[in-house]
Amino acid sequence: MSRVYNFSAGPAVLPEEVLKEAAAEMLDYRGCGMSVMEMSHRSKMFTDILETAEADLRELMNIPDNYKVLFIQGGGNIQFSMVPLNLAKNGVADYIITGNWANKAMKEAQRFIDAKAIASSKDKTFTYIPDCSDLPVRENADYVYICQNNTIYGTAFKELPNTKGKTLVADVSSMFLSQPMDVEKYGIIWGGVQKNVGPAGLAIAIVREDLIPAEDLPKVPVMLQYKTYADNNSLYNTPNCYAIYICGKVFKWLKNRGGLEATYEFNKKKAGVLYDFLDSSEMFKATVVKEDRSLMNIPFVTGSADLDAEFIVAAKKEGFENLKGHRTVGGMRASVYNAMPIEGVEELVKFMKDFEAKH
Amino acid sequence: MSRVYNFSAGPAVLPEEVLKEAAAEMLDYRGCGMSVMEMSHRSKMFTDILETAEADLRELMNIPDNYKVLFIQGGGNIQFSMVPLNLAKNGVADYIITGNWANKAMKEAQRFIDAKAIASSKDKTFTYIPDCSDLPVRENADYVYICQNNTIYGTAFKELPNTKGKTLVADVSSMFLSQPMDVEKYGIIWGGVQKNVGPAGLAIAIVREDLIPAEDLPKVPVMLQYKTYADNNSLYNTPNCYAIYICGKVFKWLKNRGGLEATYEFNKKKAGVLYDFLDSSEMFKATVVKEDRSLMNIPFVTGSADLDAEFIVAAKKEGFENLKGHRTVGGMRASVYNAMPIEGVEELVKFMKDFEAKH
Repeated sequence: MSRVYNFSAGPAVLPEEVLKEAAAEMLDYRGCGMSVMEMSHRSKMFTDILETAEADLRELMNIPDNYKVLFIQGGGNIQFSMVPLNLAKNGVADYIITGNWANKAMKEAQRFIDAKAIASSKDKTFTYIPDCSDLPVRENADYVYICQNNTIYGTAFKELPNTKGKTLVADVSSMFLSQPMDVEKYGIIWGGVQKNVGPAGLAIAIVREDLIPAEDLPKVPVMLQYKTYADNNSLYNTPNCYAIYICGKVFKWLKNRGGLEATYEFNKKKAGVLYDFLDSSEMFKATVVKEDRSLMNIPFVTGSADLDAEFIVAAKKEGFENLKGHRTVGGMRASVYNAMPIEGVEELVKFMKDFEAKH
Repeated sequence: MSRVYNFSAGPAVLPEEVLKEAAAEMLDYRGCGMSVMEMSHRSKMFTDILETAEADLRELMNIPDNYKVLFIQGGGNIQFSMVPLNLAKNGVADYIITGNWANKAMKEAQRFIDAKAIASSKDKTFTYIPDCSDLPVRENADYVYICQNNTIYGTAFKELPNTKGKTLVADVSSMFLSQPMDVEKYGIIWGGVQKNVGPAGLAIAIVREDLIPAEDLPKVPVMLQYKTYADNNSLYNTPNCYAIYICGKVFKWLKNRGGLEATYEFNKKKAGVLYDFLDSSEMFKATVVKEDRSLMNIPFVTGSADLDAEFIVAAKKEGFENLKGHRTVGGMRASVYNAMPIEGVEELVKFMKDFEAKH
């Protein structure tokens, strides 16, 4: 078996230790004689898996007691609907557009409410984060929405926007568990887990309790109501059990590494290896302004589409996979999530140096 | 490693061969150096997995070309919403209530449309299937809805209802791929895969193309529109990739066994072992009338709640797991899905005979 360095933006690299454990437990989870895939979601074994996962996540993120942790199927696109359907009392929300995902979230919200862009970095192809210190947040806005790390463009909010007292909702999919966060500054933090935490098919929403509607919303599908998950410990129906199980293992792995503070230090060092090279190279250039760079997704270009293509092919041959940039932007992108070892980035930089020397 | 006989109603037993393959491929799928959980859903490797799964399912079920096969997250409860949201042009639908799941489907539909029960077997605790040869189907009904196999009560439709020309929609979750079906008799066949096909977190909907709305439904969440999946080969967003991969392996396993005809014969023989014993036992009794019995879910009772409880504990000690009946009905239930080997049922009957002899 030979593992590649997988720079995919998502689904993405998972810790090898986690995969090894999952393989070893596939036919018989801890002597119970079944796979986790075969267990009733109402069995004690599975509820232990679920409750342990939640407890570990609460510890990692230091989640206050007045926030619910909800495990929801359907990925980010379902959250794009759930946020406005559950939060909009006035039917008004303000969005900060820093890329495709924030824009898709706003477009989806517009199916149901008056959702409006109050800032955008589209003018420079989303290569920066707009100044959010004094935005025209509407008086009656139910919430202000951001995508805190932009997978496609490689930007990240280093400071949270001034929401002028309104509830902040953040999609953190591509930076989930990559650094400590002050949960209390948010109304909702949600992330699809398939980038930095686990396999596809699951989102985790951390929702302040007072934002969850107290009554059934009679015209909203039951599975699109946060209340359904909050009232039933995410077991109203059968959840994506196997994804929860894998995420639980990743939470343990992060705790063993020293939690999110240690992970953050590691991620800064790791991303720094690539950014430092990009800032010194004649051939390769980072596309994002220095102050807004993501630690997770690092887009870069040579300036020549032909050379980009040649580089991607040559890199793949050497076991550096999925370096092609998103189809909407081209160039290259290295996604260096928690599970990417620093050796992967060091080897990549070595390869880039060789490539540059040869061209 | 010692595997138990797992009679869980779902999530449920999977073929051991499938789990062994999945374990072997966990860190490195066919030499690509990644787990299937780590692959981009837009990679050639994953699209091959998806397309092969669809082709094998089409072959197994003999699905006509004018039906789409859609892989959808969110399980049955999301289908309860999607069916009325996508199909109701007149806003009218008729439901045949043969248990909790059909009833939940109707209640969910009532959020959006005029959904009405036109038959029910509630009068005898859902232990039979109502006569559906001449029901008061409404003239303007958009569809008639059934749950074709009732997991909790152990009944199954042996004949499809006379819908008087209206579109038939069937939830087949707990009988999915257990027998051949004439797909053309249905408008939609959908099933959550976590009972008879794969891990939780995925439903498969087989939808006749003309029933899929041609235009976007502006007030319906994008992920709750069949069109979104049909237009994008189920890749509008990241699907539950790992569940699709496991289902694909189950499809191959079924083909290798001789397809659905052979599986049906096997299932009749296997269920027959238990039903024959139940019909001859003094202590154990099947709860469902003979002509409406499910081949997948077999509820039974001793007539004494204490003895039921004693039996369940004793059976568990011998490695017969999850025989407890659903919390709403009590007693016992043996779910004998495709992946349950006949030895499992033979051993169970032997154990039941011994138990009866001792009491």
